[in-house]
Amino acid sequence: MSSRQGVLLRRPEGRPREGDIGFVEVPVPEPGPGQLVVRNTWMSLDPSMRIRMSGGSDDYLPPFAIGEPLSGWAVGTVVASRSTAFAEGDQVMHGSGWRDHALLDEAGPGPETMRPELLPAGEPARWYLGPLGWVGLTSWVGLHDVASLALGDRVFVSGAAGAVGGLVVQIAARLGHEVIGSAGTAEKVAHVRALGASAAFCYRDGPVGSLLAEAAPDGIDVYFDNVGGDHLVAALDALRPGGRVALCGAISTYDAADPVPGPPNLFNAVARGLTLRGFMARMYPHRLGKFRERMREWLVEGSVTYPETIYNGLDAAPGAFADLLAGGNVGKVLVEL
Amino acid sequence: MSSRQGVLLRRPEGRPREGDIGFVEVPVPEPGPGQLVVRNTWMSLDPSMRIRMSGGSDDYLPPFAIGEPLSGWAVGTVVASRSTAFAEGDQVMHGSGWRDHALLDEAGPGPETMRPELLPAGEPARWYLGPLGWVGLTSWVGLHDVASLALGDRVFVSGAAGAVGGLVVQIAARLGHEVIGSAGTAEKVAHVRALGASAAFCYRDGPVGSLLAEAAPDGIDVYFDNVGGDHLVAALDALRPGGRVALCGAISTYDAADPVPGPPNLFNAVARGLTLRGFMARMYPHRLGKFRERMREWLVEGSVTYPETIYNGLDAAPGAFADLLAGGNVGKVLVEL
Repeated sequence: MSSRQGVLLRRPEGRPREGDIGFVEVPVPEPGPGQLVVRNTWMSLDPSMRIRMSGGSDDYLPPFAIGEPLSGWAVGTVVASRSTAFAEGDQVMHGSGWRDHALLDEAGPGPETMRPELLPAGEPARWYLGPLGWVGLTSWVGLHDVASLALGDRVFVSGAAGAVGGLVVQIAARLGHEVIGSAGTAEKVAHVRALGASAAFCYRDGPVGSLLAEAAPDGIDVYFDNVGGDHLVAALDALRPGGRVALCGAISTYDAADPVPGPPNLFNAVARGLTLRGFMARMYPHRLGKFRERMREWLVEGSVTYPETIYNGLDAAPGAFADLLAGGNVGKVLVEL
Repeated sequence: MSSRQGVLLRRPEGRPREGDIGFVEVPVPEPGPGQLVVRNTWMSLDPSMRIRMSGGSDDYLPPFAIGEPLSGWAVGTVVASRSTAFAEGDQVMHGSGWRDHALLDEAGPGPETMRPELLPAGEPARWYLGPLGWVGLTSWVGLHDVASLALGDRVFVSGAAGAVGGLVVQIAARLGHEVIGSAGTAEKVAHVRALGASAAFCYRDGPVGSLLAEAAPDGIDVYFDNVGGDHLVAALDALRPGGRVALCGAISTYDAADPVPGPPNLFNAVARGLTLRGFMARMYPHRLGKFRERMREWLVEGSVTYPETIYNGLDAAPGAFADLLAGGNVGKVLVEL
């Protein structure tokens, strides 16, 4: 058996482009004890992969090595197994995307057998890569554990038409909060409103600070940051005393060659008693079980929807990834393999 | 009765200098109902006054107006009172420093009658401006409520020879923590070590990041920030997963004419799950009572000492204040009136 897989050929300068990522066909070894082979059916594309292409950091996500396969979350079907935990035919989620077949250790990262009973009737197993997986957990723990969302908080979320941002908008609205979302096109802004945001703006329409002040003249209590840069500066000006920032991502800075200066108004945190807290969903694995049960309820009742932007075939992945960084997607970006 | 008082003549450009602050002699009105007059004996100089001279912000501390008297914490003796809460001869702490006599409203800011029984035997009432007042509370709530100091945490504090920093060093050491302090001269570094720091460095000896990495090769868990700028950048690199920053002050930026860029490595907060929280002691008034009792114990047992740099007379205050911003002091800067 062989596997076609994406390989990092060189570290991108700025936005990833043709020639940064290549493909190789490699043999898939027979699984040894405790190993399994999965035929991948869907893979996730995540902005954080861009950081790993530039070198990443050991405490964030390990860097992709030049000449080595890329990776990321994927789902697929077990086609061979020497693990007692996984049987042929099992649907599993795991960390070896960017390839059509993956040899996995049962110890991980992943794999995890997906439980179809968690999915609302008729919904696709790939939602394990979305609302029922780390993406969903990111939106929930960001609001709850990280930003300590409390009664009456007004929430601002950037990247609000994206995979995480779209869930943040819907969850916060479902819990009765006023939500302001920002996105990069008029179409996305309409989408964010349709998700339940009480106000939304296109950040290309003017200085983010002015747009936010217009959308939330009385200020905000929570900022869910997917974007960094100007958005974080604007939020620090808009946050009311005791406000909280969940630092989740900073996509506006990922393509930059040099370190991007931080917010010049961080002193607002002193004056207003603000809290900025960074996080990754994997820091809250104990939340995943309960979270999935709650998310299933929201999906069934229809208060959370989950749009996807789908690309077909591994060859489409590099272009899809560049589109994601350029803001070309609505919702979750997936590649069907 | 008349009062001599300091007045802001113009907003300083950079470090305050001759001609920024002047003095006027004004009549002190007879106290009306609920008012009292205090003969000030000591006034506090605080770095935050520099922010107020540049305009301040309403949510931090109100700006000093040009041509209007400066203010700040002071202690003195009531010489006239039409308040039922204060009697002639009472020793009070209040917010109308920078003058020899002050007409106060009983409603504040301050005044508060100082309770001599809180002071260790023989210690001066002016310590209400220091370890038993807002300065002390700043060091304590910064460590406890803001940075959530926990068993085994290694603590880094900048401005460690200053009024707040020196208390942070001693309190954290008293509670059994390893403490690393930074200061601006070799003499101060020796002082910080004498206060109980396990390591200390002079930040003028090289890049702060390298000096901190050398002093704490295994990293830090808590950073108590009095300085901002390069110190905050260095701390964000040194903080271990789950680390916390108490944002208390940013004295390195107060003289700057333009906003100073924030830390370019704030993304470390995402990768390591760091928390940055700003605060002012006045956000924790409910802590003051218990804190004073604890601080009294530490002062009596000698585990906390409180060095002071003392200037004499109101005319010395502008120069003393410039010295404070230049790092010329050890411990608390006070002016005897």
